[in-house]
Amino acid sequence: MMSVYLHDIPLQQAKEAFHQALQQAGLWKRLGSETCELNEHLIGRILSEPVWAKISSPHYHASGMDGFALLAEETNHAMPTRPVTLQYGAQAEYVDTGDPLPAWANAVVPIEMVEPFDESGSLAENPRKPHAIRLRAALTPWKNVRPLGEDIVATQLVLPAGHRLRPADLGAIAASGHTQVKISRKPRVAILPTGTELVSIGSEIQRGDIIEYNSLVLAAQVKEWGGEPTRFPITPDNFDLICEHVQQAANEYDLVLVNAGSSAGSEDFTSRVVEKLGNLLVHGVAVRPGHPVILGMIKHSVTRADLTQTPIIGIPGYPVSAALTGEIFVEPLLKLWQGRQPERPITVNAALTRKVTSPAGDDDFMRVVVGRVDSRMLAAPLSRGAGMITSLVRADGIAVIPSGVQGLEAGSEVNVRLYRNPAELDDTIFVIGSHDMTLDLLAQFIMERGRRLVSANVGSQGGLVALRRGEAHFAGSHLLDPATGEYNLSAIAQYLPDIPVRVVTWAGREQGLIVRKGNPKNIRSLADLASPGIRFINRQRGAGTRVLLDYHLQNLSISPDAIVGYELEEYTHLAVAAAVASERADCGLGVTAAARALDLDFVPLFQERYDLVIPCEHLKSKLLHPLFDLMHDSDFRNAVAAMPGYDVTNMGNIVKDCNGE
Amino acid sequence: MMSVYLHDIPLQQAKEAFHQALQQAGLWKRLGSETCELNEHLIGRILSEPVWAKISSPHYHASGMDGFALLAEETNHAMPTRPVTLQYGAQAEYVDTGDPLPAWANAVVPIEMVEPFDESGSLAENPRKPHAIRLRAALTPWKNVRPLGEDIVATQLVLPAGHRLRPADLGAIAASGHTQVKISRKPRVAILPTGTELVSIGSEIQRGDIIEYNSLVLAAQVKEWGGEPTRFPITPDNFDLICEHVQQAANEYDLVLVNAGSSAGSEDFTSRVVEKLGNLLVHGVAVRPGHPVILGMIKHSVTRADLTQTPIIGIPGYPVSAALTGEIFVEPLLKLWQGRQPERPITVNAALTRKVTSPAGDDDFMRVVVGRVDSRMLAAPLSRGAGMITSLVRADGIAVIPSGVQGLEAGSEVNVRLYRNPAELDDTIFVIGSHDMTLDLLAQFIMERGRRLVSANVGSQGGLVALRRGEAHFAGSHLLDPATGEYNLSAIAQYLPDIPVRVVTWAGREQGLIVRKGNPKNIRSLADLASPGIRFINRQRGAGTRVLLDYHLQNLSISPDAIVGYELEEYTHLAVAAAVASERADCGLGVTAAARALDLDFVPLFQERYDLVIPCEHLKSKLLHPLFDLMHDSDFRNAVAAMPGYDVTNMGNIVKDCNGE
Repeated sequence: MMSVYLHDIPLQQAKEAFHQALQQAGLWKRLGSETCELNEHLIGRILSEPVWAKISSPHYHASGMDGFALLAEETNHAMPTRPVTLQYGAQAEYVDTGDPLPAWANAVVPIEMVEPFDESGSLAENPRKPHAIRLRAALTPWKNVRPLGEDIVATQLVLPAGHRLRPADLGAIAASGHTQVKISRKPRVAILPTGTELVSIGSEIQRGDIIEYNSLVLAAQVKEWGGEPTRFPITPDNFDLICEHVQQAANEYDLVLVNAGSSAGSEDFTSRVVEKLGNLLVHGVAVRPGHPVILGMIKHSVTRADLTQTPIIGIPGYPVSAALTGEIFVEPLLKLWQGRQPERPITVNAALTRKVTSPAGDDDFMRVVVGRVDSRMLAAPLSRGAGMITSLVRADGIAVIPSGVQGLEAGSEVNVRLYRNPAELDDTIFVIGSHDMTLDLLAQFIMERGRRLVSANVGSQGGLVALRRGEAHFAGSHLLDPATGEYNLSAIAQYLPDIPVRVVTWAGREQGLIVRKGNPKNIRSLADLASPGIRFINRQRGAGTRVLLDYHLQNLSISPDAIVGYELEEYTHLAVAAAVASERADCGLGVTAAARALDLDFVPLFQERYDLVIPCEHLKSKLLHPLFDLMHDSDFRNAVAAMPGYDVTNMGNIVKDCNGE
Repeated sequence: MMSVYLHDIPLQQAKEAFHQALQQAGLWKRLGSETCELNEHLIGRILSEPVWAKISSPHYHASGMDGFALLAEETNHAMPTRPVTLQYGAQAEYVDTGDPLPAWANAVVPIEMVEPFDESGSLAENPRKPHAIRLRAALTPWKNVRPLGEDIVATQLVLPAGHRLRPADLGAIAASGHTQVKISRKPRVAILPTGTELVSIGSEIQRGDIIEYNSLVLAAQVKEWGGEPTRFPITPDNFDLICEHVQQAANEYDLVLVNAGSSAGSEDFTSRVVEKLGNLLVHGVAVRPGHPVILGMIKHSVTRADLTQTPIIGIPGYPVSAALTGEIFVEPLLKLWQGRQPERPITVNAALTRKVTSPAGDDDFMRVVVGRVDSRMLAAPLSRGAGMITSLVRADGIAVIPSGVQGLEAGSEVNVRLYRNPAELDDTIFVIGSHDMTLDLLAQFIMERGRRLVSANVGSQGGLVALRRGEAHFAGSHLLDPATGEYNLSAIAQYLPDIPVRVVTWAGREQGLIVRKGNPKNIRSLADLASPGIRFINRQRGAGTRVLLDYHLQNLSISPDAIVGYELEEYTHLAVAAAVASERADCGLGVTAAARALDLDFVPLFQERYDLVIPCEHLKSKLLHPLFDLMHDSDFRNAVAAMPGYDVTNMGNIVKDCNGE
């Protein structure tokens, strides 16, 4: 009888159980090493032994200059007015840089500091083979000589064990007389995707098929962490077949990763497989996302050197859970096995841009984007769902909300473990506010100009509020003032009374009803929203599109209660379009481009103006320069104008400037 | 007639000349792209085109939980005391996480939140196939459903062009319906080592032979920067042969690197080769190390697609110059050719630990080690010589002293471009003072304990001075007080009157005269140093060994003037031994281990005590814990005791503690 519920144990406890089992199996140590000829492919590999110098470098006294080797003592009395003359051959010999010093010499004078002359007394034809040379300054012994061992002395430590090889290291190893190097061997990792619902990348997909890419992400992670991944073909949900493949992998590899089947669903076999073939150590760890992790040991069914077991990790199926399980359990093990010194994560402290809740019992791995607005480092939480691979793609780092903490207020300081070079955070433009599809285009164009655009969609009003809190470089807004018919200015006066801003027109946009292809329900106007059988999908409160809808509904005296789906909210135009495409709703209000993107039909209703609102203090730095350049760049304007429903005629027009108007 | 002197031009000017020539040749842009099937080997590659989503993810409404799909509206009235019952099949259907939602359903209730029962009314045997389920709470529509497009909506931007692929990116590309990806092709770089004096790694070496490893370092750099290096065999100094190989490489590769022959020595052919086969743009750039750089374009002698020229870089022969020329000229070009966004270097500001001078006309690339002592970030300059590959190996970063600046005082702030993760700087133990060979061993052992030991050899007195300035975590010292015969305490009282320190014995050491094998000059005591025909090599002023020497010379009434070589100074025991081994000197004072390391003979004279001097404030942090652990670790003590002349009996004994004694 299988248990339906998992009993998660704390992360630390799970790690300890795994550690202990690995230790007992003789696997809590470096796996082994291999000897390789020195070559450029060794970069990134880990030294398994220290490198001690076999020879010195230079291994002889070498000339440090192009010039003449001589005995310093013979130049003792040279002065500008009383030169010393040395005969070529007996007292001076030409040497190129790196040439060995003649045994009788103890200094080198650079060629440009002597007067080489012929027997006749005139300047030598070949300055490197003169009759004699004249010097007008004395040299001290060993001047311009690189003495034996100047760089490396035989027997000294060149590099310690556990060091990760970089290009210059290879040079130092060669210089110290080695032709080979002993490095840790790559741990071999078998990755087994399981699940009848899975289809390989590139297959024709049907409803319900899941494209199997977790094994690809895991393989790339394993490679990045120094391991050698092998992706097995997909095994369907068949207990005996999974047992067979896991046993085979355990017999041959250092580590087995089984993807999915680790939860408690009807086809989640992994824990039973591990119980049958070895020891199930842990089933369920109190981390989010990722809690249905399995840790265990599989007994070998064949004789294999001195080992009898192979560790197995059951990796949850949600892509974010899978990738984070890799970081939490696979990365440290691979590094330990390679004898690689643990690396310190790069972290920054940042203030949360919004409140978050968190399950009290779990360590919650929250993906965030990070940027600096003035002197404030900000962390904006990304989608929390375990299924959102884009949250990992967009993430600049991870902030862990520890178990015991049920949530954090906006403004709370969190410690973010960065995925990227912290210097890049200074090139990050934080934009917040209304969602517009041209921001994707802007992100693409601005990257080519050395900036990174990070956007959070909180609606037009939310954007203005964020500006007031100093949490964005600019906001996109299209808030209609019902009283004046003007856009944004009255909302800015209301929300940002004390903050000087420049308001620049971005684009004119067409708003209308996104409907299914062919408009089967024959929706023609807002009035139709209240008709029976019409299911609407709305935008969130504070969105400019929502303000526009409410304004017109009021004009038409249509009550929201009369509209089925008015309470269902989406945060972007594309999400509204997706809801219509999937028949979750019959229509929604949005921009033309969103409808076209998903091959839907569109009923145009209004023209509106979308502006950028930029606090004047941000105009001083160079950060936003590329933004203004792009507004006048014809390639960019054409790209925006090519999107259906967009009008760039007024792009870059200043509606209101810092000085007041 | 060739010119003997180079006329260096400023770095910026050289870059511009190269840029202009590349632009004219149509080579100042991305080189081209290739289409690859998605696989884990793509990590680190650069997208040559943006990735727009072909399909949405999920591409259907998917259950977000293991549970029962249902119509939310049918649960409207469910309450804890008044459950709602739904018939299995007609009103509820079991779904695993990821399964498609039945077309009639709009929500999922997790299995653990329902009561599944049989026809008899008892708990269902198979909870996933019951007769009916009871719910005691209402669901809202779309609860626990991952709607179509929740993660990715078809047509949205998934990743911009120029992006460097990471593991999760591969997942997102697959999820958005792609099976292939267009990436920038790897620039193909030919690396041609030239020079008759060069021998390949692994060859038998003779005096004057130079082990050719620059091509290895350059190849590893090229690989790290995304290029595909090809190392050509060594070409001897033969003008026609070099021409032939350069022409062949230019015809077939994207970039040619010719190593050495770029200066103005008698066998420096590269500039003439470039002049003959194309255009010589630059010969000599005002950077140190590295100034004899050559930049040029080689005309193709065969027809090749739309190109007629290939850029060539003449790379100087000194290993540090070669590696830095790679960073300055090769890295940016390879990144440009891949369309890779320029990366911001990671930098820190740090105070120089000592004064440095710099040629006024050059941008001077100074290698430094960096560490934090309390709140002060410190940069200690490494050997400046272009031949010191170990200075690159040891470097934590580069500080550029710009042309126009002739030097910097100790304490000056410099901006260091880091080669390593800045977080590691917090694990760095800065040790300064007297050189002892066991510090190499300590570095090796301490690395395994998660610390990095960085040492600067400035002699015992220099170490105490550094402690006074707060520039080290501890200092090694063996300063004999002639008045008392005691070590270190009186010097500490003199140099560190106001700084409480702990003094711990490290090791007892044997000091004596390092002489050639067989002691051919029959040196037996310090008195022999004044004998005719004996050449001595000394340690620098402030070194404990120098103090020891001077003390005994005075006792023996031997004048320094009577000793040939007394004024020649080396900074380490091994350097003294190397001077003897190479017959630069007949003898020097040093420790037994240094003599043994270079297979020299040793005349033991004195026993001395080497102590560690640790400011008490550094005892508070955990940084030094591994140091104290090691002093009592038998593996480590045995390793030190195994070195000739070392006695660890008193290792770890506290000579003086923070509270006074």
